[in-house]
Amino acid sequence: MGKVALFAVVFYDVKRYSGGGSTGQRKGRKMKRFALKGHICYSTHPDRLEIRENSYLLCEEGECRGVVKELPQGWKEAEVKDYGTCLIIPGLTDLHMHAPQYGFCGMGMDMELLQWLEHQVFPEEAKYADLEYAEKGYRIFAENLKKGATTRACIFSSLHVPATELLMEKLEETGLKVMVGKVNMDRNSPDILREESAEASEAATRQWLKDIEGKFKRVQPILTPRFIPSCTDELMERLSHLQQETGLPVQSHLSENLGEIAWVKELCPWSSCYGDAYDHFRMFGTEQCKTIMAHCVYSDDQEMELMKKRGVWIAHCPLSNENLASGIAPVREFLNRGLNVGLGSDVSGGNTDSIFRVMADAVQASKMYWRLIDQTKKPLTLEEVFYMATKGGGSFFGNVGSFEEGYELDAVVLDDRALKTPMDLTVRQRLERICYLSDDRQIAAKYVAGEEIRLV
Amino acid sequence: MGKVALFAVVFYDVKRYSGGGSTGQRKGRKMKRFALKGHICYSTHPDRLEIRENSYLLCEEGECRGVVKELPQGWKEAEVKDYGTCLIIPGLTDLHMHAPQYGFCGMGMDMELLQWLEHQVFPEEAKYADLEYAEKGYRIFAENLKKGATTRACIFSSLHVPATELLMEKLEETGLKVMVGKVNMDRNSPDILREESAEASEAATRQWLKDIEGKFKRVQPILTPRFIPSCTDELMERLSHLQQETGLPVQSHLSENLGEIAWVKELCPWSSCYGDAYDHFRMFGTEQCKTIMAHCVYSDDQEMELMKKRGVWIAHCPLSNENLASGIAPVREFLNRGLNVGLGSDVSGGNTDSIFRVMADAVQASKMYWRLIDQTKKPLTLEEVFYMATKGGGSFFGNVGSFEEGYELDAVVLDDRALKTPMDLTVRQRLERICYLSDDRQIAAKYVAGEEIRLV
Repeated sequence: MGKVALFAVVFYDVKRYSGGGSTGQRKGRKMKRFALKGHICYSTHPDRLEIRENSYLLCEEGECRGVVKELPQGWKEAEVKDYGTCLIIPGLTDLHMHAPQYGFCGMGMDMELLQWLEHQVFPEEAKYADLEYAEKGYRIFAENLKKGATTRACIFSSLHVPATELLMEKLEETGLKVMVGKVNMDRNSPDILREESAEASEAATRQWLKDIEGKFKRVQPILTPRFIPSCTDELMERLSHLQQETGLPVQSHLSENLGEIAWVKELCPWSSCYGDAYDHFRMFGTEQCKTIMAHCVYSDDQEMELMKKRGVWIAHCPLSNENLASGIAPVREFLNRGLNVGLGSDVSGGNTDSIFRVMADAVQASKMYWRLIDQTKKPLTLEEVFYMATKGGGSFFGNVGSFEEGYELDAVVLDDRALKTPMDLTVRQRLERICYLSDDRQIAAKYVAGEEIRLV
Repeated sequence: MGKVALFAVVFYDVKRYSGGGSTGQRKGRKMKRFALKGHICYSTHPDRLEIRENSYLLCEEGECRGVVKELPQGWKEAEVKDYGTCLIIPGLTDLHMHAPQYGFCGMGMDMELLQWLEHQVFPEEAKYADLEYAEKGYRIFAENLKKGATTRACIFSSLHVPATELLMEKLEETGLKVMVGKVNMDRNSPDILREESAEASEAATRQWLKDIEGKFKRVQPILTPRFIPSCTDELMERLSHLQQETGLPVQSHLSENLGEIAWVKELCPWSSCYGDAYDHFRMFGTEQCKTIMAHCVYSDDQEMELMKKRGVWIAHCPLSNENLASGIAPVREFLNRGLNVGLGSDVSGGNTDSIFRVMADAVQASKMYWRLIDQTKKPLTLEEVFYMATKGGGSFFGNVGSFEEGYELDAVVLDDRALKTPMDLTVRQRLERICYLSDDRQIAAKYVAGEEIRLV
C-alpha cells in the first residue's frame, strides 16, 4: 500500500463513525437546491426567536442558505415547496432517550429512580438479549420517533451488542440523524443485566464498534457508561482509553436523585462531586470528548462550574424528573452561567417522546421552581425552551437546530389547522399553542439534513 | 288552581332545572336493556380499583345493573355490544372549565393569575358579547368536549346571557350531561366585562334562568359568582337569595393564588378565611347548596375544616396550578380528611380538556409536593386519581362515575391498540398507560346515562 493510500485510510479512520458530514457528502452528489415556503421560526440566541412570515427557507446540499422574502438570483429554477400558512421550524433534538424503555412509557409511575431501575427498567432491558423481542420493541420505537418532530436524538440502547446494532439499523431506515450507545454496566445490577467484567464490557464495546464500522450514513455510535453506580473504576478507565482512541462522544447521567448522589459519594469517596467522578476518568466534556449529562437536578455551584469549564451539554428532562419524583433542575441558573442546555424526553422516565411536550413541561417545571424553591429564578420563556429544543440541543451535532446560514437543514412543517380556535393568532401564539397542544397529527413534513423523510 | 295542581307546580319548580333525573325519565319511555362487554374498570373507594376482565356491564333504563361474568336470566335477549379487549371505564367528570377560554388553550402561559386575567382572559371573554363570535368559539368547545373521555362537566360561561344560552344549546346537542353557569361579576374587571350593578347582575341571572326553563334535557344551570374579587357583597347577598329560592348548585374559585388571597382579605376584612367569604353568604356547600370550589391550593386547616363541615366539592386543577405558577394543592391532606375531591381541567389555565392528562398531572404534581414541600405526604396513586376523575367528581352529579348498581351509566370504551408496546400488559398497566399516553383517538365509544354518543 503506497503512502497516499495509507493517508486515505487514516483519514477514513478518523471519520469512520461520523456518519458522513456535509463536506463528505458533497463528493459525487450533484448539487441540489430547493426552498420551503411558509411562516419560518427559528432561534439565534436563547432569548431570541426569529419569525419570518411568508418567507423562503433556502436549502442547498443539505444546508441552509438563509431565510428570505424573495427568491434570490440563481434560485428561480429551484423547486419551491409551498406550505401555505404552515409553520416551519428547525427539527427538534432529544438529547436523552432510552430506546428499550419505550415499551413501558407511562407505566410504573409510582417509584423513585433506584427502585424504578430495579423493578421496572432492568427486567425489561434484560429482554433485549432476545433479538426477536428487540425487533418488536425497536420497530415501534423507531416508527414513533420518525412520526414526531424530532430529527436528532442521543439514545441509550441496552448492554446487548446485537440488539444495539439492530436498533441502529432501524433508526438508519427512518432517515433521522441520531447517536446510539451500547450501554456499559459491570456492577450493581442484576445478573441478567450486568457485564461479566470491565474487560468483557470493553471487549463487547469494541466488537460493536467494529461491527458497525462504515455501515451507517446517519446513525453514529456514542460511548455510554450507564452511570457511575453501574460502572467500576476499571471499566471507566478502559472506556476512557477507548474514548481517547476513537474520539467518540459520551453520554451518561448526572445528579438526578438524592439517593443516587449519596451512593456515588460512597462508591467514589475520592470524588469532590458527582461530576468529578466522570471527570476523573476524562469523560466529562472537553473538546476531545463531547459529553452529554442527563438531568443535573442537584448540580451545585462546583459541579456547574466544572460543566462550564469542560463544555458539557446538559440534557434537561423535566417530565422525567417529575415522574420519578427527582425534583426540578435549576435551569435558569444553567442559562445564567452560559452552560450548554438541551432538552431530553428521557423515555421512559419521561412518558412521551414528544419534545414539544417537554418544552411545555420545562416551562411548567420552571414555574414550580420559582414558586416553591427560589423566587429569584424567573420562569423560562417560550423563546428559551424553543432554543433549548432546537439550537441548544442541536449544537451537540454541530451546526444543527437553526436556520442560520451553513446549518444543516433539519426542518419540521407544522399544520395546526386542526387545533381550532375562534381567535386570530399571531405566528408566535400559534407556535406556543403547538408546544402545548400538538401531537404527531400536526407534523405535515419533515426534513433531515436536506432530505425529506417519508412520514407515512 | 286547585291544591293538587299547585303542589304539582311547586314540585316541578324544584325539579325544573334538574335536566330530568332517571326517575323522571322512566315515565313514558320503554324499558331498555343492553350490555357492554370488555375489560371493565371502576372505582368503589379512593384506593380501590375494581378490574373485571371479559365481563358484561349491564345497563337498564340508563342505569348500571352490575358487572357480571355471565349474562343473568332475563338478559339473554338484551343487546350485547362486544368491545373485545377494549377497556370500559366510567365517563370522566371535569369539575372546572371555562368555555370562553378554550380558544386560547396553551397560550399566554407566561403570566400569574391576576395578570393573566387582566391581559388574556378578560379581553377574550368580552368578545362573547358578540353571538357570532360565541357561535364559533362554543362550537369548537362543544365538539372537542364530545370527542374526549369526559361525560360530565361543570362549566363557566361568560357574563353574557345570550352566549350562555347558546353554549347550553351546543352542549345539549353533544349528549353530555353538564352544568353551565352564566358568570356573575360586578367589580374589579374592565368596563367591557363587568355588570353595571349587583341588581343588574341578578336580573340578568334571573332572565337567563327564565329563558332556559324546561328547555334542556341534559344541561343544567349552576350559579357562578366568578370569585370574591369580582363580586360585591351586595351581589353575593342577592345570589344567595336566588340560590335559596331555586336550590341551584354553585361553583366558584377558592385560594388559588397568594396575591388573590391577600386581595380577598382586603375586600372582606371581616372574613376569617377566603372560604368564609363565601360561607358568610351561605354559598359554600351545605345540603341545600351543593358547591364546587376550584383550586384550594392554599387552603389551611381552618378552610379545610369548613369545607369538610359544609360538604364542599374541591375541583383539583394541577395543570392549571402549574401553568399559572399558583403552586400545588395539598391533595393528600384533602383525602386524609375525607373531603370531596374531583379533578378539573380548568381550561384554559389548564391547557387541555383531557381529564386523562389531568390525572397524570395530579400524580406528577403530588410527587413534587412530596419532594419539595412535605415528605410526610405520600404521592397520589393511579387508583386515587382514577377515583377523583370518576366517582369523586361524578358524585357532584349524584350516582355518577362508577359501575356500582344504581349508578347512571356513563361509560367510555378505550381502544389502546395504537399505543404499541412489545410487552404483555395487565389491564391495570394498560389503564395507567392510557392516562399518560392517550388522546381522543383512543375513545372507541361513549355512553352518557345509557345513551350512546355519536363520536363522528
